Amino acid sequence: MDPSQVKIPPMKDLTVDNITENVIRINSLCEDERMKYVLERLVSHLHDFARETRLSSQEWMTGLMFLTEVGKICSDVRQEFILLSDILGLSILVDSIDHPKPPGSTEGTVLGPFHTHEAEVMPNGDSMSHDPKGEPLLVVCTLKDMNGNPISDVKIDIWETDSTGHYDVQYAERDGPDGRCIMRSDDSGVFWFKAITPVPYPIPHDGPVGKLLKKLHRHPFRPSHMHFMFEKEGYDHLITALYLRNDPYETSDAVFGVKDSLVVDIGKAGPEYAKKYGVSEDHALLTYDFVLVSDSETNALREQNSKVALDKLGRKVKIVNGLPVPDLD
Amino acid sequence: MDPSQVKIPPMKDLTVDNITENVIRINSLCEDERMKYVLERLVSHLHDFARETRLSSQEWMTGLMFLTEVGKICSDVRQEFILLSDILGLSILVDSIDHPKPPGSTEGTVLGPFHTHEAEVMPNGDSMSHDPKGEPLLVVCTLKDMNGNPISDVKIDIWETDSTGHYDVQYAERDGPDGRCIMRSDDSGVFWFKAITPVPYPIPHDGPVGKLLKKLHRHPFRPSHMHFMFEKEGYDHLITALYLRNDPYETSDAVFGVKDSLVVDIGKAGPEYAKKYGVSEDHALLTYDFVLVSDSETNALREQNSKVALDKLGRKVKIVNGLPVPDLD
Repeated sequence: MDPSQVKIPPMKDLTVDNITENVIRINSLCEDERMKYVLERLVSHLHDFARETRLSSQEWMTGLMFLTEVGKICSDVRQEFILLSDILGLSILVDSIDHPKPPGSTEGTVLGPFHTHEAEVMPNGDSMSHDPKGEPLLVVCTLKDMNGNPISDVKIDIWETDSTGHYDVQYAERDGPDGRCIMRSDDSGVFWFKAITPVPYPIPHDGPVGKLLKKLHRHPFRPSHMHFMFEKEGYDHLITALYLRNDPYETSDAVFGVKDSLVVDIGKAGPEYAKKYGVSEDHALLTYDFVLVSDSETNALREQNSKVALDKLGRKVKIVNGLPVPDLD
Repeated sequence: MDPSQVKIPPMKDLTVDNITENVIRINSLCEDERMKYVLERLVSHLHDFARETRLSSQEWMTGLMFLTEVGKICSDVRQEFILLSDILGLSILVDSIDHPKPPGSTEGTVLGPFHTHEAEVMPNGDSMSHDPKGEPLLVVCTLKDMNGNPISDVKIDIWETDSTGHYDVQYAERDGPDGRCIMRSDDSGVFWFKAITPVPYPIPHDGPVGKLLKKLHRHPFRPSHMHFMFEKEGYDHLITALYLRNDPYETSDAVFGVKDSLVVDIGKAGPEYAKKYGVSEDHALLTYDFVLVSDSETNALREQNSKVALDKLGRKVKIVNGLPVPDLD
């Protein structure tokens, strides 16, 4: 690069007190207004974190080595940075910010690191789990909009562990996907399938995130749950999960995912469901009525929440597509 | 883990507004008071960053994938997380906080990612660079304490690039260390060696950090410099570098390292140095007088700075070993 082309404002002798404004200034050469704002806040908070903790060089190096380890252990089937985000409460926070839910809609929760893109499409009534040791569970769900109308042809990703609390990708010598499937809701907004009753399990804790949890005297367990993800054009992408009531970890989820509205009871099929779905009357049954929100309603709510939050902060920003960017007027 | 042993305060239904206090509460099971404080500030700033930017799920995932890439490219000879910290101004900030310098002492600067532990010990007068294309440079330095007394037997790590701007470790097929050495100051606090005149060079920018710089319209160059690191019991560890005056990147260093007190002129040996050090009179010469600070003086200054900074914030903390921890009284 030709130094005469360098348009960087001159800077030298950077100190504890002036480094932040200088880094923000040099980064503001960026043309992407949104990225500029995100980086401005990132640099401000990163620097304030160091100033408020009086972070030592040794602690800084320990942190960088920790992050390096987190990156190193990541693979096609393990995402330790998502885990780290999960156990720091960042994942659930970002989901809550980006997918605000009006009353009456199904709440979202953490994606977790075990969603994959290899699940097979399955028709209504099929079995998603082939673990013979799992307790068979019939799952019958409806999918409606905020006005109570059924939504058909929604792509639904569903995933859960086997009876030992492991996802398929956690087995090095697996044959293919199991304990996961993709379904489509039918014309009446219904989808139903056979699964196994979820069990509590620890998030992977043999890596750097597990070491951190141990140092914090936190356990790595998640309460029993089954993941769901809903996608259809015109509707806000919903990532959620259903949790079993009275699970021993219901109020101490390692990744902060449990919401009361997502806690369910496992019942028995009884005569009606037994007949309709071809199971015995004492077969375990889980039912749930999911409610999706339209994109437009979500966008309006997101924009409104952004304005309220930024007004509180007194920041001179404008909201573009629901997200704040610097207001240079 | 036996759930009855779980001492975690019950939590559920975590929202944008209550997630932070809950994560801090669960992390406060940690017995290490310093770690508890560092994590409290980390979680607060991480969450505020997400709330102030209204971080979207897509941006969050882009960030996690970026960090994963940064981790993946790290190796024994490449530390991309240090690079990332450097270009965000965090490295120079942490050095300034942890190694405060009283007036009259030599200022510190960024360590950078190229210090290694394999340099060979070299006696006064030896050559640290074997690059025949480099411009030979005689370096003569003194090392004194704040009272002007020479300090002998200090371990001094010195490292620089070759004439093409690459450190030894950047060559896959190298034979061993070059352009780096370890020296010891003599009884009069002097150390001197033969090197090559430093050249400007880009930090490694073929990885994720380089992509980020490009997106920000920032160049990856560092002005010409030579690194020095000083260690002796009783003295504050000094990581610093000397920069050449009028380098094209003197005021736009990609990692914010240049300080006026560390900018030097390259002169000519002249008759006196030529005779004393066995070089020609027009041989390039660099001289510098380094001044180290005692541990006790640095610790007192660090503690004083911490108190001032924390008082300003109104935080209820106490200072232990110069670092803040929660004050639970």
